Amino acid sequence: MASWLPIPSKSHFSLANIPFGIISTSNQTTPRPAIAIGQHALDLSAFAKNNGFSKLTNIPTDVFSQSTLNDFAALGRQAHRATRAYLQDVFRQETPYPELLKNNEALQNEALIPLADIQSHMPLSIGDYTDFFAGRNHAQTVGTLFRGAANALNPNYNHLPVAYHGRASSVVVSGTPLHRPWGQVLPNPQAKEPEFKPCSRLDIELELGMFVCKGNKLGASIPVNSAEEHIFGYVLMNDWSARDIQQWEYVPLGPFNAKNFGTTISPWVVLADALEPFRCQGLVNDVPPKVYLDEKRKDSILDINLEVYFKTAKGNKTRITKTSSQNLLWSWPQMIAHHSVSGCNMRTGDLLGSGTISGLEPGTQGSILEQTMGGKQSVVLEGGEERKFVQDGDSITITGWSGTADDGLIGFGECEGTILPAITRE
Amino acid sequence: MASWLPIPSKSHFSLANIPFGIISTSNQTTPRPAIAIGQHALDLSAFAKNNGFSKLTNIPTDVFSQSTLNDFAALGRQAHRATRAYLQDVFRQETPYPELLKNNEALQNEALIPLADIQSHMPLSIGDYTDFFAGRNHAQTVGTLFRGAANALNPNYNHLPVAYHGRASSVVVSGTPLHRPWGQVLPNPQAKEPEFKPCSRLDIELELGMFVCKGNKLGASIPVNSAEEHIFGYVLMNDWSARDIQQWEYVPLGPFNAKNFGTTISPWVVLADALEPFRCQGLVNDVPPKVYLDEKRKDSILDINLEVYFKTAKGNKTRITKTSSQNLLWSWPQMIAHHSVSGCNMRTGDLLGSGTISGLEPGTQGSILEQTMGGKQSVVLEGGEERKFVQDGDSITITGWSGTADDGLIGFGECEGTILPAITRE
Repeated sequence: MASWLPIPSKSHFSLANIPFGIISTSNQTTPRPAIAIGQHALDLSAFAKNNGFSKLTNIPTDVFSQSTLNDFAALGRQAHRATRAYLQDVFRQETPYPELLKNNEALQNEALIPLADIQSHMPLSIGDYTDFFAGRNHAQTVGTLFRGAANALNPNYNHLPVAYHGRASSVVVSGTPLHRPWGQVLPNPQAKEPEFKPCSRLDIELELGMFVCKGNKLGASIPVNSAEEHIFGYVLMNDWSARDIQQWEYVPLGPFNAKNFGTTISPWVVLADALEPFRCQGLVNDVPPKVYLDEKRKDSILDINLEVYFKTAKGNKTRITKTSSQNLLWSWPQMIAHHSVSGCNMRTGDLLGSGTISGLEPGTQGSILEQTMGGKQSVVLEGGEERKFVQDGDSITITGWSGTADDGLIGFGECEGTILPAITRE
Repeated sequence: MASWLPIPSKSHFSLANIPFGIISTSNQTTPRPAIAIGQHALDLSAFAKNNGFSKLTNIPTDVFSQSTLNDFAALGRQAHRATRAYLQDVFRQETPYPELLKNNEALQNEALIPLADIQSHMPLSIGDYTDFFAGRNHAQTVGTLFRGAANALNPNYNHLPVAYHGRASSVVVSGTPLHRPWGQVLPNPQAKEPEFKPCSRLDIELELGMFVCKGNKLGASIPVNSAEEHIFGYVLMNDWSARDIQQWEYVPLGPFNAKNFGTTISPWVVLADALEPFRCQGLVNDVPPKVYLDEKRKDSILDINLEVYFKTAKGNKTRITKTSSQNLLWSWPQMIAHHSVSGCNMRTGDLLGSGTISGLEPGTQGSILEQTMGGKQSVVLEGGEERKFVQDGDSITITGWSGTADDGLIGFGECEGTILPAITRE
């Protein structure tokens, strides 16, 4: 698919992609919807105002003048599909609508904004945020560290997609720095008395996030084989984790302060339709699924290349992880089906995390805890620096994409977060 | 405090109370703010429109034309205090403003609505919902059932207010029926293979809920000694719990489907100021608090009488619990301080649950699990019926109040929920 707009072949935002986000600019600070295409954002609010959507029928274009994508998401999969296809047509070399943008220099000047000039905002207003634990390799490795190989996975692990409710308020968009969290930690594993101090075992978790477009009524559930109709799209996610706080607090009700100080997501939501060509099988589960988790399709895991880069305050940048989202045991439809089977109502804007995505080999693991064997060894970075956990001033960037430059990458761009020093507590 | 409006002496909504909620009526279905007073609701939207607030300065009265109390809550404690005092003045026998309502029959007809004629709605739009575990007697009894008396409380219990992030979407207002949840459960404790079926160990949890009026910035925290400025008010809460689902799912990340099918709250938010006279000490903690949990005041637990009524489908209604919110180890300021000490940002409308409030004696326990010793014995109800857990058609009503009829009750009204049969799953 060629475009009249110059799009670098290695761009994450090829014409095959068309991801949606929320942007503002220095001379128009009101957040508004946009798509990313090549090195530009198309301001959908300006595009709509100038009749850019005049050839697209059945889509209420006031959704593009909102400050979040929730209203657009709520229109459902068919509307997302039609809008994406229409915008691809608008940018296609042989566009059927040259008058709309290709030959409309005034609108190009108004609505096509270099990505370098935009500020990204949270793409949706999150209803509830839930984090799953569907990366079995991560669960296996971390479980082995804590309980030995024989008891690595809990008995329920292969029977249901384990999850916990997370904190929605502290989910932030890429580029938002986070302060090192405070909390109670045990000074050593034998200690009985905790200390109150800034976290000293600050870790990352490489995850995918998924936004729900359409919910269900309280008491009802979403059947696994129609669950894809409830998926808006995907983002990269860094589920920052304070391992020392987590270790002391998490029994019996799960992680709390160890996670709620911040979760970073990438700004551009890659629509579910854009990733349709990259369906695949995930990890094999020997346990037969219960009926409500039994998918007809066996290819609803996605094949997305994922990388983590670690940049120190000194400026040394090292790729520490290279893996794939194939390393999931449970699919998104299974997660949705399980979440709602109790009768729990999902809502537009709900964010679900996959859990940490890891391979089993060195250099494929999505958390530093795994890479250092629980802090026993160091990750060696460029320039000879070493890390057992994240230090103040360190910056973590996750990136991810499917496809090839030849066919057009379906990429996520970047999910970046820098850790600032802890703020003094009273 | 006497009122020109007849208020029955046993009313929960005395002139000393003035709780806030959201109502609608059959001839005006738009939800809008109200207070409860005696046997009436005062429609604050109509009251504001007719200059009822004309003698109240510095309060932007457009907050009373919203469909939630969030904007009112966000004004802060001083505004709540001033508004409550003003409305007490309006209803006082010797009101300084008789022209506003006492002598204004037209406005009385428009804005004073019998409680029997109103529909209650969720008082606030919830940001995040967090459930604490601050009822130590409950933790002790349940821990003893599962792990024996020696290991009843986990090592962290007396050091920090244990909590988990809950599900905001399924918090419902009193009177909303809930369907029995489905889930995976082990058929017996020795079983290795779960079954997928409707919950057969459906329980209740008697709790208090607290709404946050004012948040903090991400990375900052709320100091324990100023945390009360962040409290809007309180509601009764039933944290419905599917014990069989919980048992199978909760290790290692905490309760999920066992809780997310529904949580019921009472409709009227009793302002923090209304409960000031009922400050008291809670349960004694022998562990010295860390500095961020160390309150100057030692009386910031509340003394609220709490009761649970169990009504069967046959109509037999039995009081099964009589206890007090003194049975908490951690205060609301301590819960807020702990929640935010990581840097987690609280927001207007966040709902915090106390955890199950129980005494240690029979008839004082806030869950059926405790009353039946884990399902080993039955709770005997009026009419000779017995229950080990909640059956379809059963209705649970929590009620609560502080003070005496002589001085005017500060009551919560009722928090009721009925369990309907499970909905068939595909």
